[in-house]
Amino acid sequence: MASATNFQNPSWFLSGPHTASIRDHRLAEDEGNPTLTDPYDVLVRISYVGVCGSDVHFWNHGGIQTFVSSTAPIILGHEASGIIATVGSKVDSLKPGDRVAIEPGFPCRRCNFCKRGQYNLCLGMRFAADPASGQHGTLTKYFVAPADFVYVIPAEMSLEEAVLVEPLSVAVHTVRNLGLKAGESVVVMGSGTIGLLCAKVACAFGAERVVLCDVLPQKLEFARGYVEGCETFLLDKGQMDTEVEAKRLLDALSPASADIKGVDNVIEASGAGSAIQIGIFALRNGGSYIQTGMSGRAKVEFPINVFSAKELNLKGCFRYGAGDYELAMRLLASKKVGVKELISSVTPFERAPEAWEKTGKGEGIKNLIEGVRD
Amino acid sequence: MASATNFQNPSWFLSGPHTASIRDHRLAEDEGNPTLTDPYDVLVRISYVGVCGSDVHFWNHGGIQTFVSSTAPIILGHEASGIIATVGSKVDSLKPGDRVAIEPGFPCRRCNFCKRGQYNLCLGMRFAADPASGQHGTLTKYFVAPADFVYVIPAEMSLEEAVLVEPLSVAVHTVRNLGLKAGESVVVMGSGTIGLLCAKVACAFGAERVVLCDVLPQKLEFARGYVEGCETFLLDKGQMDTEVEAKRLLDALSPASADIKGVDNVIEASGAGSAIQIGIFALRNGGSYIQTGMSGRAKVEFPINVFSAKELNLKGCFRYGAGDYELAMRLLASKKVGVKELISSVTPFERAPEAWEKTGKGEGIKNLIEGVRD
Amino acid sequence: MASATNFQNPSWFLSGPHTASIRDHRLAEDEGNPTLTDPYDVLVRISYVGVCGSDVHFWNHGGIQTFVSSTAPIILGHEASGIIATVGSKVDSLKPGDRVAIEPGFPCRRCNFCKRGQYNLCLGMRFAADPASGQHGTLTKYFVAPADFVYVIPAEMSLEEAVLVEPLSVAVHTVRNLGLKAGESVVVMGSGTIGLLCAKVACAFGAERVVLCDVLPQKLEFARGYVEGCETFLLDKGQMDTEVEAKRLLDALSPASADIKGVDNVIEASGAGSAIQIGIFALRNGGSYIQTGMSGRAKVEFPINVFSAKELNLKGCFRYGAGDYELAMRLLASKKVGVKELISSVTPFERAPEAWEKTGKGEGIKNLIEGVRD
Amino acid sequence: MASATNFQNPSWFLSGPHTASIRDHRLAEDEGNPTLTDPYDVLVRISYVGVCGSDVHFWNHGGIQTFVSSTAPIILGHEASGIIATVGSKVDSLKPGDRVAIEPGFPCRRCNFCKRGQYNLCLGMRFAADPASGQHGTLTKYFVAPADFVYVIPAEMSLEEAVLVEPLSVAVHTVRNLGLKAGESVVVMGSGTIGLLCAKVACAFGAERVVLCDVLPQKLEFARGYVEGCETFLLDKGQMDTEVEAKRLLDALSPASADIKGVDNVIEASGAGSAIQIGIFALRNGGSYIQTGMSGRAKVEFPINVFSAKELNLKGCFRYGAGDYELAMRLLASKKVGVKELISSVTPFERAPEAWEKTGKGEGIKNLIEGVRD
Repeated sequence: MASATNFQNPSWFLSGPHTASIRDHRLAEDEGNPTLTDPYDVLVRISYVGVCGSDVHFWNHGGIQTFVSSTAPIILGHEASGIIATVGSKVDSLKPGDRVAIEPGFPCRRCNFCKRGQYNLCLGMRFAADPASGQHGTLTKYFVAPADFVYVIPAEMSLEEAVLVEPLSVAVHTVRNLGLKAGESVVVMGSGTIGLLCAKVACAFGAERVVLCDVLPQKLEFARGYVEGCETFLLDKGQMDTEVEAKRLLDALSPASADIKGVDNVIEASGAGSAIQIGIFALRNGGSYIQTGMSGRAKVEFPINVFSAKELNLKGCFRYGAGDYELAMRLLASKKVGVKELISSVTPFERAPEAWEKTGKGEGIKNLIEGVRD
Repeated sequence: MASATNFQNPSWFLSGPHTASIRDHRLAEDEGNPTLTDPYDVLVRISYVGVCGSDVHFWNHGGIQTFVSSTAPIILGHEASGIIATVGSKVDSLKPGDRVAIEPGFPCRRCNFCKRGQYNLCLGMRFAADPASGQHGTLTKYFVAPADFVYVIPAEMSLEEAVLVEPLSVAVHTVRNLGLKAGESVVVMGSGTIGLLCAKVACAFGAERVVLCDVLPQKLEFARGYVEGCETFLLDKGQMDTEVEAKRLLDALSPASADIKGVDNVIEASGAGSAIQIGIFALRNGGSYIQTGMSGRAKVEFPINVFSAKELNLKGCFRYGAGDYELAMRLLASKKVGVKELISSVTPFERAPEAWEKTGKGEGIKNLIEGVRD
Repeated sequence: MASATNFQNPSWFLSGPHTASIRDHRLAEDEGNPTLTDPYDVLVRISYVGVCGSDVHFWNHGGIQTFVSSTAPIILGHEASGIIATVGSKVDSLKPGDRVAIEPGFPCRRCNFCKRGQYNLCLGMRFAADPASGQHGTLTKYFVAPADFVYVIPAEMSLEEAVLVEPLSVAVHTVRNLGLKAGESVVVMGSGTIGLLCAKVACAFGAERVVLCDVLPQKLEFARGYVEGCETFLLDKGQMDTEVEAKRLLDALSPASADIKGVDNVIEASGAGSAIQIGIFALRNGGSYIQTGMSGRAKVEFPINVFSAKELNLKGCFRYGAGDYELAMRLLASKKVGVKELISSVTPFERAPEAWEKTGKGEGIKNLIEGVRD
Repeated sequence: MASATNFQNPSWFLSGPHTASIRDHRLAEDEGNPTLTDPYDVLVRISYVGVCGSDVHFWNHGGIQTFVSSTAPIILGHEASGIIATVGSKVDSLKPGDRVAIEPGFPCRRCNFCKRGQYNLCLGMRFAADPASGQHGTLTKYFVAPADFVYVIPAEMSLEEAVLVEPLSVAVHTVRNLGLKAGESVVVMGSGTIGLLCAKVACAFGAERVVLCDVLPQKLEFARGYVEGCETFLLDKGQMDTEVEAKRLLDALSPASADIKGVDNVIEASGAGSAIQIGIFALRNGGSYIQTGMSGRAKVEFPINVFSAKELNLKGCFRYGAGDYELAMRLLASKKVGVKELISSVTPFERAPEAWEKTGKGEGIKNLIEGVRD
């Protein structure tokens, strides 16, 4: 469990439930680096940390539903890039000076979930800034991680872009878990960071037709520029009948979807109750739906009989797992997905709360916080 | 489309929306059999017809949600056995006198759903007694069906038992579509005909632990006698907190489910909103859930975030498809599943409404109607 | 079964085993079109027919292994495009004048293979120019096909290109059946028409790294121009040790494959015994291999223990099935795959044997035969 | 790497390539137990060790093909049961005195194979008695293993039976990896320990029809007693034409396999070249084949075109992976599989070579070696 004396780095943390404050003590042993205790770990000097909606939620509320903060203080942040400072004695895949992206959750490696290839479902997962697991986050000067969760980035990738490997891995996990097949159509509900990245990944996976939906026209305008060849559909906030709205969506997509009366896949990345329903109604018989990310509400109204009679496949989606970071890295390296366009601002470490506030107000797409300067 | 002049058999039918009456005209050409028009069809003299909850619903309401009756009269019934009367010129798999079970839905064979192995999702499906498709049902003297949807039953199987191949095929389709793997645990919500048969099929598929749930203790008592080695759990109708009820269920199953905090699979065969929620809460991370049959309500409250964070797999389930009838037949022939115990009553053809009323009141498990006697 | 009197179109056919000759009788009823007997069929006026290696084999040998010709004459050809002449009374998806690509095999629609979505495995398949099934081929003036196996081509696609939908569908079926996942590497053994198209399809499916192999440098040179971003590897015909040759291939691909000691996927499109072995040796543990097309030899030497110890997945691949033609059409329409570059020559109908001889000598990639002119 | 000074237990080992001798030094620190260095490890006092064909091969030849022995001595044995002597400080799943079965291979837990659920394919695997990995075997007094690879056996299971969890896990892995579905038919080539256990597991997984094949009638006689409801088929050693022999097998199984012209699945557990071919020829279109265990020959003649034209699925199979030991334990605990009948002899530790010789001569099914007595 975390204790206050652990915070020997300048770090942003939750000092307890529902509060957050800055601690900026210099390390006592600051002349050298902290000591690594596990020979397979590495020490990373953090370069950039991204702001995720969940950070803002933590910042404001101290947790999300079951992911509640304990009374122990915990460092925030889970999207991060950096430079290797030291490596453990058994690490040969990394060396000091390597520029890296960090996968911020560390499973137990010993349970059945880990062994059968679903380490993201590990009950002993230590995920950065998750108060339930007591694992500190990345909004700090130095961060310790197992070497196999740290990925060297190519020379042509900036450390700013490397932060985006985290949300891109969410998108990779989503599209993989959905089971999207080449040549299929996909509707993405919600055109924020995750929705946009899912659309890009779906294209890279060979999707035939990608339709981004949102209630905000400016988001769709950005989407059209960012996702080459995509279509967009402006959802009508005033339309309370989700079945009618789904029909309107399908009519806009005709004639392609006419013969099978629906789309092949829906990626729900908005969490809105109405979007969830529209997604279900828009699917063809036997279609697939994935829920990525959390809804603002624990329960929603769900059209159970349509789901059953159409024999739909629904999947939950939680973070990322085996191979997702590697594939995200390769998609970036091969330019199939670019993320530069998504970086909206970079805030100095000392003024981190400004980045959270910006994100909280919906300003920009991905706001970054710079690491501690020397 | 059906027209009144088609009813040349003694048949029970819906003469229009929300009404039903008996028609008992003898065939004009009753000396011989009706003529087959398709050389791949056969004519079956109906022996027994089973009563399904949906028949009662049709009887009372003239349809179920989107499966609405038109103004044209339609013969009722879709669970049936019989004896081959005549076969078309290109049929060599069947001959007059063969005792058969009938699969009562006939897909178009030409659309993408049919071609890719999901004929139960065919938009041109003609399903017995489905008013939307205009296909007459089996509660008649003679019934026409394509030969490849008619299955010869073994000598040791009675024509009464053969009626149960239909609900058993629903169970086979459910357990297959769920993707249940040998050695896994499964909780079945609802212990009616479909729930009981799903439990039996799950055992035949190698499930390690099968738990039947219901709110009625007498149903669980029957279940314990019918499904060898199963466990049962009495749901508390008064417990409004479904998360608490799921916890109580898991506690009753400890310690087996303790380490992975949940069960591997849930088969929801009750359609009750609370059961749906309990099922979701009782699943382990990465567990699988299937909804078989319809709910009484088109929409239910659904715990979307638990579904997503546990990365659950949810499947709808609709009727039966390729190979389900054959497997149901084999399970019966090999005695892995017996259905005699489920047959509660046999009502003469002329008094068919008594069988519907019995089923409507929850009397018996499977009530049969005898075919027209000579 | 075919009989000589059926040949009322000008057609190229095998008049019996191991011989082939031209018949060019005009139709007796040539003033009008032949009559359609099945209301779901259409009559196509053939525009172009492609030459496949199997045609040349039939031309020279009268059959391939188990696909042997009977004594009855059979019209040749199975890659074809054309224009709709007449449609049956129940056809509403096509109309006279429509420009179409033809899927040339017609399954029974009633067996288990058809019903479970594997119609290409149907034992009652009538495949164009397959002597075993007695189904005439497409090298004729008019060809009858079920409407659902005939696909309207987009306005911007030429009838010459439409012929290539057939081999492209082979490639689509191959890559789908292989189970290639986005981000994986694939080695293609053999850089003929099928190998090239498989490489293109693999790219469209999101393959990360595509390596085309051949023993002929000029084929690899063409491949580099045709498959954007691919790598090529010249196999050494003189190297008899296939394990050494596989090692040389992997060394050329380093360092990407170094850590997992092999590639993710192999598509074997050459049929050469040595290539088959090199493919097996080049795969990583758990890798996947697919054999597309026939080998010149019925049996080959196979490294069974390496296959087993690496826990490889091997798949056979036969023609194309549900959805393959549609996806091939979409890949062409969206320009993800182009086929114009593959068309090497167009020979008039009367001189068809010249096209076979050209293909037999390895001249060109895809040689076409023009349909009968008026 | 192992060095001679490591052998501080009484152990049977290979002292170098192609030789084997006994070392029976008492531990210097024999008053207490050896010290555990990893807090997640446990120390097991070995009770019984099983003899596998590969042990005999090692005993005679010092290795199998690529699994070659180095010059360093290595302790033999990999099928073992025992009693927990000590547990590491972080182990809470086991305690001294627990009776256990040991899974004898320990993956690295950090590579992609481990992370994606295929730890049996881990390139860093340390497998008991595998000279390539330098991991000592179980034919010793005390054996160290990670706690999560050690399984407490139920009170009613003997320590002799617990040894058989290892080959049973091979069978579980085989049938799982094959993808056998309930209701399908399976032919098992070879009726030794692995063949017999595969047949039992196939039954437990719901296989409809299980056919054991062998060239020795006495093996088939044992099989009929051991695998309830199975069929057997005596292969004709003199029949050199494997296609004819496959036809003879299918004829014996008619009419069940007649309509689809073959069986659904083949488990090849003999390694014989002819059996491999017969298996391929006996499969229906789209059927599945798995090769479990090693062949005596590195390469065999393989009917590549039949494999391709039937679109078969072939799988290699190597040891066991995530969940296989647990499922094997559950199959034993629930009496779905019994292994007592397979235990043929128990030889004292000091006379271990007698057990190898017995197995080498084909005497008995599973011969055990008792652990060191105090």
